[in-house]
Amino acid sequence: MDNTPPVPGTQLPADAAVPPANEFLAAQLRQGHVAAQLRQGHVADAVERLNALPPPEGAAALAQLPEERVVEILDKPELDEPAALLSFLPSDRAAALLEAMSADRTADLFRDLDEPQRAELLSRLSVETALAVQRLLSYPPNTAGSIMTTEFVTVPENRTVAQVLQYIRAVEPTRETVYAVYVVDGETRALLRAVALRRLITAEPDAPVLSAARDAEPITVSPTANREEVARLFRRHDLLAVPVVDDAQRVLGIVTVDDVLDAIVEEGTEDVHRFGGMEASDEPYMQIGFAAMIRKRAGWLCALFLSEMLTASAMQHFEDELERAVVLTLFIPLIMSSGGNSGSQATSLLIRALALGQIRLGDWWRVAARELPTGLTLGALLGVIGILRIVVWQSAGFYDYGEHWPLVALTVGLALVGIVTFGSLAGSMLPFLLKRIGFDPASASAPFVATLVDVSGLVIYFSVALLILRGTLL
Amino acid sequence: MDNTPPVPGTQLPADAAVPPANEFLAAQLRQGHVAAQLRQGHVADAVERLNALPPPEGAAALAQLPEERVVEILDKPELDEPAALLSFLPSDRAAALLEAMSADRTADLFRDLDEPQRAELLSRLSVETALAVQRLLSYPPNTAGSIMTTEFVTVPENRTVAQVLQYIRAVEPTRETVYAVYVVDGETRALLRAVALRRLITAEPDAPVLSAARDAEPITVSPTANREEVARLFRRHDLLAVPVVDDAQRVLGIVTVDDVLDAIVEEGTEDVHRFGGMEASDEPYMQIGFAAMIRKRAGWLCALFLSEMLTASAMQHFEDELERAVVLTLFIPLIMSSGGNSGSQATSLLIRALALGQIRLGDWWRVAARELPTGLTLGALLGVIGILRIVVWQSAGFYDYGEHWPLVALTVGLALVGIVTFGSLAGSMLPFLLKRIGFDPASASAPFVATLVDVSGLVIYFSVALLILRGTLL
Repeated sequence: MDNTPPVPGTQLPADAAVPPANEFLAAQLRQGHVAAQLRQGHVADAVERLNALPPPEGAAALAQLPEERVVEILDKPELDEPAALLSFLPSDRAAALLEAMSADRTADLFRDLDEPQRAELLSRLSVETALAVQRLLSYPPNTAGSIMTTEFVTVPENRTVAQVLQYIRAVEPTRETVYAVYVVDGETRALLRAVALRRLITAEPDAPVLSAARDAEPITVSPTANREEVARLFRRHDLLAVPVVDDAQRVLGIVTVDDVLDAIVEEGTEDVHRFGGMEASDEPYMQIGFAAMIRKRAGWLCALFLSEMLTASAMQHFEDELERAVVLTLFIPLIMSSGGNSGSQATSLLIRALALGQIRLGDWWRVAARELPTGLTLGALLGVIGILRIVVWQSAGFYDYGEHWPLVALTVGLALVGIVTFGSLAGSMLPFLLKRIGFDPASASAPFVATLVDVSGLVIYFSVALLILRGTLL
Repeated sequence: MDNTPPVPGTQLPADAAVPPANEFLAAQLRQGHVAAQLRQGHVADAVERLNALPPPEGAAALAQLPEERVVEILDKPELDEPAALLSFLPSDRAAALLEAMSADRTADLFRDLDEPQRAELLSRLSVETALAVQRLLSYPPNTAGSIMTTEFVTVPENRTVAQVLQYIRAVEPTRETVYAVYVVDGETRALLRAVALRRLITAEPDAPVLSAARDAEPITVSPTANREEVARLFRRHDLLAVPVVDDAQRVLGIVTVDDVLDAIVEEGTEDVHRFGGMEASDEPYMQIGFAAMIRKRAGWLCALFLSEMLTASAMQHFEDELERAVVLTLFIPLIMSSGGNSGSQATSLLIRALALGQIRLGDWWRVAARELPTGLTLGALLGVIGILRIVVWQSAGFYDYGEHWPLVALTVGLALVGIVTFGSLAGSMLPFLLKRIGFDPASASAPFVATLVDVSGLVIYFSVALLILRGTLL
């Protein structure tokens, strides 16, 4: 939104500087052509077309469409710069569109705006809409409150099925979904039941609306529930929408499945980015600017580099051993990387298990009790392969590991058992530790685990070497 | 399903061996208690309760519930052993339940069965259902065809809105969703339009059904589309269901949003597991058996270990340099890990960008053109920190890097620039390469990238060292 002058209420940009008549005509024709493209077909295609246009041209095309279509376009989260588009429309038109948009999308639009445009645009809303938007903006990002919308259908419990259907027909155009209707207490407005539209249309018209409800407490979430919890509820109960309720069970809004789908995919992207050892980014790769790209990657890269410097310190500590037994250095990368790899496997398993709620914080010891034998088995496997490699190379004459080569092989084998076991344990416990101290377990990135295991791996390797090779090589 | 004897059609297990009367009564009471718990409340809770019971007991409790409730329970993908439960019910009851279940869930059940139970159970279905199930089973896993269901609503184009609503009321109980109705050509059965239920209930009852449809080609998928493509369509168009059509545009089935939600989460889990360097697993962590756990992890771990052995070979090659300049070995882990870390960042970015369709195979050179300057900048940053570290330690007297320490510092700094740049490039190109040769780009795991960069990183490091230190240290 940087490259568009924030001049809300400006008329079509063609009026601003008067271009020669034929250019003016050409621009008019082009806008007519674009408007014709936007008018028909899928909204998603219109959004894509609009994203490719500079906001003044896009706004000029939007101005020629019926309001219903413009609202559909503005309601798509994929639209890049809704605020910029609105700023190029006449101010009364922009205000009307903001009123007609879904409240969650209007809130998103305000979230991306800076002052003073934010205050200016907010002042043009009706009191009711402005309050709704401000309430949505007050919830922390990635909570149910921040992704809910306030356009839902509630009915008092004393209505009949036919009355409710009649009401749905009247309000349908202004509601994000009508496939779930919320029946509330006439007095307290507390939520009693959720009724699916498919059950309403098959129910007896004269029956009370509650007769079409299932005999189960409605599934609800609190506005501060995070989006991962919300997604778990949707999957568990196959929901299309979930009501967000306050402490008195009054419905504040609803979260719809399309927003949950987007939230899950965003969460997945963030998890992969964090696991790859960088700051998460929701923007498409090609749209991340150079400076932002460096910022998102440099922080973790430098932090890991500084931690990894401990390996240099560890090696300085074992300097004498290194000088005496250069043969040991040959296996340093091999051994260290094996620890990192087994750690990264364990971490990937635990990050997902924690994110999906399959495992709780208190289960850490159960996980440790599984990872210990797993790590020992995997370590023994690699240890045998490592020993075989040295035996084969030595016997076949590919390389001479010195007269004490059997002891060197034993050192490598035992160090692998120790390091792979340590890697599995450290990699599986780190997500728990991070969760315990209030971080996202997904911050336990593969590079983070590798760094952790590298330093301790060196110490394990040289300790095993000292134990086995003292008196011979060392 | 291993621990349950596959005796389809067996009566309630209490009949099998006759227990003493009081034990029999106690078991009867317990079953009544369980059945009461399963009868009420949310289906998801009943499924959880049932998963905790041995299949014979679970089946005995199910036998006391109304069929509608049992079908709801069997329809939940979270139910662990539906086939085992059915095998403990009377065979006519089991057959009726299989008929009443969603076709996609029935197909899932058969997918998990081995012969001869599979053939035996299939023979008990009606011809119609058996054909539908066999067709669903014929699609490869993770395609639209394999996750679709065959219970959907189609109507010929010459019906009125009122007629369609009447039809929906009649078939609602047997359809997975009625929120989208598919209007087909009366002759060819080709799909013409999708109509949302919310539009039907607000439309004029006497109007033709097509008048309630939107003026846009319906969104469809082919049965062989993979589930990632299906998920992208759902997000792009905010769908609740999408019709799966054959080449003649006839509807074969529909994919509903609840299955897409599950598919996206499974896909996310698989991506994280693969990125962590192991075979993907859909099972909850605690339910993966020890042998399966070793199998899923040992393969990649051994493959990476064998590749990483090239580092030992590379170091053997530079043996003379290592003997002459032990100071160089101090920085090997530091330098190698930096390459792996920058590679893992680039890979995580590209895996997601490719999975979300933000970037296509042909964009590889555009990505390379971004990663080159990014890698150079990040490498220069780490290079400066690396040089500073050596300067500070040397000046402060923490460690003596020898008389040529400024050249050692220069070697480390330049090697870091080269290795981080190489890491970013290799890490970003590997997903493209894997996709090009037909693999999942997500197989480009962080350990895989690290291994790739480790070997080449050593070569870069020693080459830079030879260039700068020849005549002094080397």
